[in-house]
Amino acid sequence: MSINKHKNWKEKLHEIIYEADTPAGKIFDIVLLLLIVASIILVMLESVTSFAEKHYDFLNISEWVITILFSIEYIARIIVVNQPKKYIFSFYGIVDFLSTIPKYLSFFILNSHSLVALRALRLMRVFRILKLARFVGESNNLMKALRASRAKIAVFVFFVLIICVILGAVMYIVESGQDSGFTSIPRSVYWAIVTLTTVGYGDIAPATALGQFISSIIMIIGYGVIAIPTGIVSVEYSKNYSDKENLEEKPIQKIRLNTQICSNCHHRTHDDDANFCKICGNNLH
Amino acid sequence: MSINKHKNWKEKLHEIIYEADTPAGKIFDIVLLLLIVASIILVMLESVTSFAEKHYDFLNISEWVITILFSIEYIARIIVVNQPKKYIFSFYGIVDFLSTIPKYLSFFILNSHSLVALRALRLMRVFRILKLARFVGESNNLMKALRASRAKIAVFVFFVLIICVILGAVMYIVESGQDSGFTSIPRSVYWAIVTLTTVGYGDIAPATALGQFISSIIMIIGYGVIAIPTGIVSVEYSKNYSDKENLEEKPIQKIRLNTQICSNCHHRTHDDDANFCKICGNNLH
Amino acid sequence: MSINKHKNWKEKLHEIIYEADTPAGKIFDIVLLLLIVASIILVMLESVTSFAEKHYDFLNISEWVITILFSIEYIARIIVVNQPKKYIFSFYGIVDFLSTIPKYLSFFILNSHSLVALRALRLMRVFRILKLARFVGESNNLMKALRASRAKIAVFVFFVLIICVILGAVMYIVESGQDSGFTSIPRSVYWAIVTLTTVGYGDIAPATALGQFISSIIMIIGYGVIAIPTGIVSVEYSKNYSDKENLEEKPIQKIRLNTQICSNCHHRTHDDDANFCKICGNNLH
Amino acid sequence: MSINKHKNWKEKLHEIIYEADTPAGKIFDIVLLLLIVASIILVMLESVTSFAEKHYDFLNISEWVITILFSIEYIARIIVVNQPKKYIFSFYGIVDFLSTIPKYLSFFILNSHSLVALRALRLMRVFRILKLARFVGESNNLMKALRASRAKIAVFVFFVLIICVILGAVMYIVESGQDSGFTSIPRSVYWAIVTLTTVGYGDIAPATALGQFISSIIMIIGYGVIAIPTGIVSVEYSKNYSDKENLEEKPIQKIRLNTQICSNCHHRTHDDDANFCKICGNNLH
Repeated sequence: MSINKHKNWKEKLHEIIYEADTPAGKIFDIVLLLLIVASIILVMLESVTSFAEKHYDFLNISEWVITILFSIEYIARIIVVNQPKKYIFSFYGIVDFLSTIPKYLSFFILNSHSLVALRALRLMRVFRILKLARFVGESNNLMKALRASRAKIAVFVFFVLIICVILGAVMYIVESGQDSGFTSIPRSVYWAIVTLTTVGYGDIAPATALGQFISSIIMIIGYGVIAIPTGIVSVEYSKNYSDKENLEEKPIQKIRLNTQICSNCHHRTHDDDANFCKICGNNLH
Repeated sequence: MSINKHKNWKEKLHEIIYEADTPAGKIFDIVLLLLIVASIILVMLESVTSFAEKHYDFLNISEWVITILFSIEYIARIIVVNQPKKYIFSFYGIVDFLSTIPKYLSFFILNSHSLVALRALRLMRVFRILKLARFVGESNNLMKALRASRAKIAVFVFFVLIICVILGAVMYIVESGQDSGFTSIPRSVYWAIVTLTTVGYGDIAPATALGQFISSIIMIIGYGVIAIPTGIVSVEYSKNYSDKENLEEKPIQKIRLNTQICSNCHHRTHDDDANFCKICGNNLH
Repeated sequence: MSINKHKNWKEKLHEIIYEADTPAGKIFDIVLLLLIVASIILVMLESVTSFAEKHYDFLNISEWVITILFSIEYIARIIVVNQPKKYIFSFYGIVDFLSTIPKYLSFFILNSHSLVALRALRLMRVFRILKLARFVGESNNLMKALRASRAKIAVFVFFVLIICVILGAVMYIVESGQDSGFTSIPRSVYWAIVTLTTVGYGDIAPATALGQFISSIIMIIGYGVIAIPTGIVSVEYSKNYSDKENLEEKPIQKIRLNTQICSNCHHRTHDDDANFCKICGNNLH
Repeated sequence: MSINKHKNWKEKLHEIIYEADTPAGKIFDIVLLLLIVASIILVMLESVTSFAEKHYDFLNISEWVITILFSIEYIARIIVVNQPKKYIFSFYGIVDFLSTIPKYLSFFILNSHSLVALRALRLMRVFRILKLARFVGESNNLMKALRASRAKIAVFVFFVLIICVILGAVMYIVESGQDSGFTSIPRSVYWAIVTLTTVGYGDIAPATALGQFISSIIMIIGYGVIAIPTGIVSVEYSKNYSDKENLEEKPIQKIRLNTQICSNCHHRTHDDDANFCKICGNNLH
């Protein structure tokens, strides 16, 4: 009976942590959501030097509170689950683990003066944001559309890269000797990507007439080419969309208006102009 | 009878103010439109220091004229309406009220030297532009498409924000120590948003080779991802569009122009070129 | 007979100038095309100060040659046409006239030192490019799609303008006192338009944390909103496209695979599974 | 027999070089792919002055190794092919030749001090990237969509160029006398293209109020217009897409899964749930 009780306690916790259809489960989810957002804001504020110097204690204590709460959550998840190993090595398991340890690690490394390692640790805490993935739901159409058009987008990216390498090399030759930032081919390729994607920082911009002429051609031609990913995703998405519609409503391919049911074999899907049942030959009228 | 006359006067004014199918109503709408536009231009000109100093009197008097006219309009709307309370606390009622009061308030606050409060008041007058919403009509397809894709766009925005936070943190590490503007994670996240949306101010731009390499990946991959909202709105809009078409015309799946009804079996859906009833064999002519 | 001959000469010239199906007509069109392009390049080169000073004579003589050729073309068009008045006051007539006169006018104004007038005259010659409209053909789908979505795009532009005015005013308050370029509301509205359209020059960019935060919201939300014109044009264009397809090929709604022809009444469009002719009742097999 | 053996050797090599369905053929393709990528990276690194000075020997030797391997590949391709002339003057033949010679040529030109010629030669090696075209496959939908919408995109580009020339000329007049970069019409046209394509470097940006006003109009109106190529490509691509679907699967209008053939009348297109032949009444089971 004690085992049974223990089981019940475990099951209840499982319901709270992994499901969201009980009041307690909903509260758990909301608290977790707020914790994640708070921890991200903390990491961000820590990086603002003026703020970090002023409020060092506040940041340090808050970080410890969040770390401890995440630790409790992580341990609870392991205890509650039937196959702990499967959870620990799942995507969410790894994210949860990495979200918890940075502060503990910083405790050990604090003595050493390896600032870069500390930076990287602080960075890792930003990935806590991936815990939010739980709240998005994986079955949404956007992801499906992206996944379905993966191969096509890869071909497109490959195509754009080839164009950018060639254009970068050409612009490197054309703008060499100018003080316009085309100091090497890699930098020129970077410029070509910035231009083709219409981002256009302006940190590197052609200074010669010929360079500006070539850039103009790139932009205009490129604008036509760059419309392709939109086309791919639109088509893929609209296809997905209508597929779903079909499953929910009915296949488009054959819409029968005839709602007659054969009085003999109770078959329903007769052609609109059928007089006799296709299945048993019974007169439909 | 006097009450009846009074009623008529109220009804006429209601027609002028709230409807646009009488000549007087049309004139009222056009005058109001011009007044709103004029008041917006006034606020804008007031903010141009060189202009404001030169033409202080002109701006002050014009603003008083517009404020008084808006006051008359606001009072008239309250008098004319059957349920004044409902109007006063409606969206348009609040906008009309806020459009009217700033100048009156500035009259009182002028003595004090609270310039910030004055600024905020001047700002409020800009929201008069919301009065124009009345002229747009709420039932247009654009709004419907946006409203229908609200949830999807929210998921997308959420998704973009997660990417931007992670990228911002990565770039903060990579570009730290450089004079390229990545001074904190929030600023880096701002940069990531500017880059992913292809705005690309260039006030913050990567200076290291690694930073430029990461940026290039962001831009190219991001370009594919960012095509999604266009896809969503296009599909939603085209769905809206064809829904409307269907209601107006007829189901696409089978369009029969033949409206003949069989005199024998009263069957309706004959092919356009049918001479004999498909169901009972009766001559249709 | 002399009149007849004169008529023939006129008719032949008409064919050469206005049609392109004779060899002479084609040559005329190509020469005109080259002349227009040459005249545009001349105006452009004239504006490059270093070039204009070096090659003043070349530019002056070339411009006179082109002006005289355009004059001959203009006079020829008037003589040849049946209703000269109708041509003169048509779109092309006005463009042709304005393309011809600038150099003549500059002859008169040269004495006076009104440089601004001269500039405007030089500018006018650029509009010769509109003569190229003749070669595009007016019945293309692009124009139809744009014309069909005119009203929707107007509503959209109106909507964007309202957003930009409000955002401009908000940013003017937020960034006031900073050296970031938001010196007046009109300038801030200009910035908002530059940002919402994802152009992003960077000549004006937010410097405060709050300003960058608001900008980020504008960009992300704005990106979703700005996808609308693409949606509108895509739908309108694809509608246009399928309309044309339908007319050319056949209605999509009903595709009959049955190619049998009734031996009695020679009717063709039988249902795929018909055994008897729907029109005359003749057995199809 | 010796001839036969030689033939076999040739045939085997042909299979390795031109096909990818044998293990050896796959290895050849992967090695070639890596070689091309390596050679592109070499050219890029060579352009980074700091790197090139440090690692001159490494770059020189690597370049020679790659050049020799490409030479072997080129000669092998010529030997193996049945019609060497046809290969040599084909697109791939020319690309392969140009990919091989630069280093040899630099050997001869090294003595002379013609640095520009050397630069151009280095550039040529970048075009080795075109060898990757072999791996993309020519029959992908993207290319088809682009090819199908070629004419429409040309009209669009022509249209954009006309707008840009006019806008450039107008902005040149408006911004003349300012230090904002509109020093000549060609530069202003360059600016108009940068703006209309939403790249927006910011190296040239309007400084006057009127200039900013005109720019705002350009951006907003332009945004609507510039949506067109996306529309064109989307429609063309989605058309391509559904065409392919149709060919692969069957006409959408009627998809029958029933592949039974009536043993009596050999009729094929029975409904999925048919028990009796619709044509002759024969039992299908």
